[in-house]
Amino acid sequence: MGLIVQKFGGTSVGNVERINNVANRVIEEVEHGNQVVVVVSAMGKTTDKLVEMAKEISSTSSKREMDMLLATGEQVTIGLLSMALLQKGHEAISFTGWQAGVRTESVHGNARIMDIDTLKIKKQLEMGKIAVVAGFQGMTADGEITTLGRGGSDTTAVALAAALSADRCDIYTDVTGVFTTDPRYIKGARKLKSVSYDEMLELANLGAGVLHPRAVEFAKNFQIPLEVRSSIEKETGTLIEEEATMEQSLIVRGIAFEDKITRVTIFGLPGTSGTLSGIFTLLAKNQINVDIIIQSITDEQTTNLSFSIKTDDLEETLDVLEHSKDKAGFDRVETESKLAKVSIVGSGMVSNPGVAAEMFEVLSDSGVQIKMVSTSEIKVSTVIIAEHMVEAVEALHVAFRLDERAAVQALGGR
Amino acid sequence: MGLIVQKFGGTSVGNVERINNVANRVIEEVEHGNQVVVVVSAMGKTTDKLVEMAKEISSTSSKREMDMLLATGEQVTIGLLSMALLQKGHEAISFTGWQAGVRTESVHGNARIMDIDTLKIKKQLEMGKIAVVAGFQGMTADGEITTLGRGGSDTTAVALAAALSADRCDIYTDVTGVFTTDPRYIKGARKLKSVSYDEMLELANLGAGVLHPRAVEFAKNFQIPLEVRSSIEKETGTLIEEEATMEQSLIVRGIAFEDKITRVTIFGLPGTSGTLSGIFTLLAKNQINVDIIIQSITDEQTTNLSFSIKTDDLEETLDVLEHSKDKAGFDRVETESKLAKVSIVGSGMVSNPGVAAEMFEVLSDSGVQIKMVSTSEIKVSTVIIAEHMVEAVEALHVAFRLDERAAVQALGGR
Repeated sequence: MGLIVQKFGGTSVGNVERINNVANRVIEEVEHGNQVVVVVSAMGKTTDKLVEMAKEISSTSSKREMDMLLATGEQVTIGLLSMALLQKGHEAISFTGWQAGVRTESVHGNARIMDIDTLKIKKQLEMGKIAVVAGFQGMTADGEITTLGRGGSDTTAVALAAALSADRCDIYTDVTGVFTTDPRYIKGARKLKSVSYDEMLELANLGAGVLHPRAVEFAKNFQIPLEVRSSIEKETGTLIEEEATMEQSLIVRGIAFEDKITRVTIFGLPGTSGTLSGIFTLLAKNQINVDIIIQSITDEQTTNLSFSIKTDDLEETLDVLEHSKDKAGFDRVETESKLAKVSIVGSGMVSNPGVAAEMFEVLSDSGVQIKMVSTSEIKVSTVIIAEHMVEAVEALHVAFRLDERAAVQALGGR
Repeated sequence: MGLIVQKFGGTSVGNVERINNVANRVIEEVEHGNQVVVVVSAMGKTTDKLVEMAKEISSTSSKREMDMLLATGEQVTIGLLSMALLQKGHEAISFTGWQAGVRTESVHGNARIMDIDTLKIKKQLEMGKIAVVAGFQGMTADGEITTLGRGGSDTTAVALAAALSADRCDIYTDVTGVFTTDPRYIKGARKLKSVSYDEMLELANLGAGVLHPRAVEFAKNFQIPLEVRSSIEKETGTLIEEEATMEQSLIVRGIAFEDKITRVTIFGLPGTSGTLSGIFTLLAKNQINVDIIIQSITDEQTTNLSFSIKTDDLEETLDVLEHSKDKAGFDRVETESKLAKVSIVGSGMVSNPGVAAEMFEVLSDSGVQIKMVSTSEIKVSTVIIAEHMVEAVEALHVAFRLDERAAVQALGGR
């Protein structure tokens, strides 16, 4: 008998029919003789609808009250899924984040899990029940409801798998696995049989969307094997584990991309140390994720600084910069929106110099101008004009032989 | 400086605009220099929608999971109302039932409040904040989420007022006060300036719908003055307090009525003591409220027993009876639905014999057949065919001089 943690996302529980379908998936594992903990997200567009109401009421919604509001989404799902399981003759019991013992730090909107007190869940599992847990949410030591940020249900699932020493953590989504690139936009996209934690981390961080990066990090730290699979199709998914044993002949494993990127440039920043960190600390405090950062020295006294953010964070970023203008002493701020980020990812890059150069050449040949570049050991990211995003990814997908035929070859004819 | 508890029902917080309106009402009290605790229900038809989804999934929904599901409704409202108050420049903080320290017994779907640990709320009030509390819900000693049953938000408000020694508890509704009878159906219905707890208790119990009976009981026990007022119209409401000082010239203060009543008759029940209590204990355990009970002896060995229930509870009642048939040893069960209950209420009845007789005469003159009768010191209830309900109430309303002109006279020309 094993202990399996299953996670079903918002689309998988989008309506009553789908919740019944999820119940069947859960029961399959139970009937294989496993103990099952199910982690679920809010139904379909519930979270978006709640955010919309909040925006109608308040221009700058309190993050504490937003957590209060959003945490209801998953609570609805756990109630309904437990009812579905009971209706189908299986003992089930639901847990909110706080009931499941998910303790987080005291940050609203984007809290990290500190630890999980699994006592209550274990007791119910031992009584033969299926534990249905609300993802995405937890409680601080003071009894405040927190949320883990978008995609946080993945993190809940992996953290629970770690805390319960689960044998497996299955992440059910609306796609059948992790692809070389997003199949919704790129025709030749192909499903990968396995990827390493680090590759997945880069892919997730870069907006591949299948898995929350913090969840992958958690899984890596606790060496929890993850399987990304479809909640609808019954086919093998993509395994995420320490070493991607297959497909090593692929230097580039995947191409991630996202639009709605804005480049912010600060002109005439004094060269004193501390100015930079001051600005980024302030942005971080406001939960704004700064991605690529480029600093260029113009003369001896001042520097220009560019960084990329999500366009959604632009207004808040400009607020923060406006407030710190006097203290930081810079000249002016310029922004360019309607940009996109395209990144190639693969562990094979480390031992293959020239991959970045090849990427730039492909983009140049396609007439795509590169606005910003950032590299790490297993990825190269470029910021380009959003309009060119899909054609750039398509060109790279072919150039790095990720399109269907080439990839099948690389996998030895599978 | 006083401490006011305000309660706003589902209609009052039905949409974003109305929530903003409620925020303004709250701020008015704050600007009068009062500390304010606001108790709110779920938005509009939220609870009904959740119940509907549950019914789609499960024919006999687990009461625990139903509580898990329904408790989300108020949690959405407290988040949004707090945001609205913050947006309008007032410090506010929301509390779920469990965060507010509302401890209940371990019954799902219809729990009673055991006590309230007001420590957290008091702390926030002292810091100058408005406390926004989710009505209708609480937590057991085991950390289980419970709900107080429909209308339970009233109970939360009164219990909080008692626990906090509040100066007043204002119940805001979609009506402007307590009426002589339901103004939605009866044209001559007139607003009362005050009623006693006992009268209100009978009116509430009889389905007048304005206030939850448990809330009135709570208020009576702790002598909390309640004011029922409109959340939209700015006019004086109805005060509920120990002695209804005004309007004493009215023998009958109000007429309550509700349809969807079913009469259940058990034939051939053995005359052994214990049989009766056994059946009613079982019904009570299943949270079925039995109202009027009539027992008639047919011969020396057996009795027939009739009682009235809400038609919604019929299926469950028949289940319970079916299961206890062998043990109780009765012959058969018959039911009659499409009935209604009409009751006259007033403290003045105690000292006025013949009020019941007058009621029966009025009904008889209107050609309305009486199926069941029950009397107490301050009310007379009759069960009649639902089809005749409105005409019966109209006839009684006029006969007992509750219609507008007569009532104004009785109040000394007010």
